[in-house]
Amino acid sequence: MLSVNPDLTIVDLVHDVPPQDVLSGALALEAAFGYFPANTIHVAVVDPGVGSRRRAVAAEARGHLFVGPDNGLLSLALGAAGGGRAVVLEKAEFFRDPVSATFHGRDVFAPVAGHLSLGVPLARLGRAAGGLRAVAVKKPRRLGPRRLSGEVIAVDRFGNLVTNVDGEAIRAVFGTHAVRDVRIAGRSLGPPVRTYAAIPKNGLGALSGSTGRLEVAARDGSAADLLLARRGTRVDLS
Amino acid sequence: MLSVNPDLTIVDLVHDVPPQDVLSGALALEAAFGYFPANTIHVAVVDPGVGSRRRAVAAEARGHLFVGPDNGLLSLALGAAGGGRAVVLEKAEFFRDPVSATFHGRDVFAPVAGHLSLGVPLARLGRAAGGLRAVAVKKPRRLGPRRLSGEVIAVDRFGNLVTNVDGEAIRAVFGTHAVRDVRIAGRSLGPPVRTYAAIPKNGLGALSGSTGRLEVAARDGSAADLLLARRGTRVDLS
Amino acid sequence: MLSVNPDLTIVDLVHDVPPQDVLSGALALEAAFGYFPANTIHVAVVDPGVGSRRRAVAAEARGHLFVGPDNGLLSLALGAAGGGRAVVLEKAEFFRDPVSATFHGRDVFAPVAGHLSLGVPLARLGRAAGGLRAVAVKKPRRLGPRRLSGEVIAVDRFGNLVTNVDGEAIRAVFGTHAVRDVRIAGRSLGPPVRTYAAIPKNGLGALSGSTGRLEVAARDGSAADLLLARRGTRVDLS
Repeated sequence: MLSVNPDLTIVDLVHDVPPQDVLSGALALEAAFGYFPANTIHVAVVDPGVGSRRRAVAAEARGHLFVGPDNGLLSLALGAAGGGRAVVLEKAEFFRDPVSATFHGRDVFAPVAGHLSLGVPLARLGRAAGGLRAVAVKKPRRLGPRRLSGEVIAVDRFGNLVTNVDGEAIRAVFGTHAVRDVRIAGRSLGPPVRTYAAIPKNGLGALSGSTGRLEVAARDGSAADLLLARRGTRVDLS
Repeated sequence: MLSVNPDLTIVDLVHDVPPQDVLSGALALEAAFGYFPANTIHVAVVDPGVGSRRRAVAAEARGHLFVGPDNGLLSLALGAAGGGRAVVLEKAEFFRDPVSATFHGRDVFAPVAGHLSLGVPLARLGRAAGGLRAVAVKKPRRLGPRRLSGEVIAVDRFGNLVTNVDGEAIRAVFGTHAVRDVRIAGRSLGPPVRTYAAIPKNGLGALSGSTGRLEVAARDGSAADLLLARRGTRVDLS
Repeated sequence: MLSVNPDLTIVDLVHDVPPQDVLSGALALEAAFGYFPANTIHVAVVDPGVGSRRRAVAAEARGHLFVGPDNGLLSLALGAAGGGRAVVLEKAEFFRDPVSATFHGRDVFAPVAGHLSLGVPLARLGRAAGGLRAVAVKKPRRLGPRRLSGEVIAVDRFGNLVTNVDGEAIRAVFGTHAVRDVRIAGRSLGPPVRTYAAIPKNGLGALSGSTGRLEVAARDGSAADLLLARRGTRVDLS
């Protein structure tokens, strides 16, 4: 990137997405992109399909630019940004030469981002991409009046369990009623609390995390370790 | 931060402080802040009490600025800087809007740092903070003439054991006499050496680390693993 | 560095080289340096011999500058760059004062890099270094007509096994013939594939990695874990 545009400001957002875990990468990008300045170019690379027929794309949405593989990695951020327009990266003049079959982060996405930062318009990079691939995030299910069931979709580095239950889903099922209990892995956590510090010492609790999703957390510990929970573990709200 | 001040230079100092480990964070900040240029703004976030009644503060000391939670995280650096003055962050105009209950690094500390970098004076951020909370670092104890007992306070990523025994404590007890032996976990390491390379192959040694504290290190290995040592493990100098 | 030159652009390349693993550090630098802009100053610190008689050096090769310990860390990059000239760092005016015995990254290499970025010529830093130390990377061995034997030299964070077999070695032994089989740890992987995605689900494969070396990879998994392989594990091509 700096070879193309030496005046860039580069911010490393996250380098510890689990290998090949496109969903975790998509969640990280969704959680963070909106807090960067307008016109930020977000380069995202979790790319197990590199060199195959998966497309390379760039997109613009709500004043942000995105560059990455068309494997769902950008889909949550673009969804949160309300859509946007995307192009397929097919103009080799904006790539490194040669392009390897195993590292498009270096050979395609980074140089394209450099050119975007110099003002190259999206349309010059390639034709309209049409629909992009999306990662599958299950919706939580309404099981009855004021009963909602969801699941863990990611574990953060603190061992907090991020679920697919967001505030909107809770409001749709509970309306103005409070959630009385959150159950997970056979444990009853009681109603959600507001802060990590409100969880009792050595205890577990549920709360609305920094991205608006319900999280299960342990006080000064790892909920993932304590509950032997992971992606797919069920969580029930009543 | 870049949304407030796009001309900032951001340096990532450390992202692998163990979760909720305020003391390790405080030691990292103490070890590093003085090597940054004057007027650097040090944003520190190890913040298990986020959203609770713990205060958010900014401080100035010896030409450096500090922003973070008032939970002891800043205390070792401020102590090393000889004190300084601190204010409570209470002016929402310098925060993101809204402020979440679970991520003040994003919503309070980062935007405040951005404003400080633009020249907003400390006094405009809030009222004087009075005394800040401090982390507890035990002092080493004099056990007799030329006998000093301390403990491990942190383990670095190399497995080196950082102790609470600094050069000042050694001078106070040993004067001009040399330390003849360092004992830990039932092992006698002999006198401190000057460099890691002076530790015998496959051996262990004690030396003055880069922060001036006595460290126990293994040659080409992890002292923590070899000695099954951790924070609180006792070390004796004679 | 920023204390010496506040206008520097700093890029963090890698902070997870295994402790004291000079060879892994040398491979990381070799893999990356050529993709940075001309006149980049590469500061490399994997330095178990810090404070001992190992020399501190700076070098220039193919329009890039390098700063680090003379322990082999720079040798693969300099070799790939076709040599270059090196000087011993011996002018304390370009160091921090005082210089510790345990952290030359902070006290020697970083300030020297800052001064280099301000235009201080290499020759002012010290006398010509003569030959630098080199890390030992075994050459793959020709075992017969179209039979080549090499070994794993590094494991990356995905668990991919990077070998000492590069394209040049393959061409020397196989000429225009194709490699029919890659064997490792008792497993036959068939001929090399072009991309990670071409490896069968739950399978293993060999391919030319982003640095041109033959790699053994698992589809959506860790080849190192699946094969219990590590540095030194033998790989055979036929």
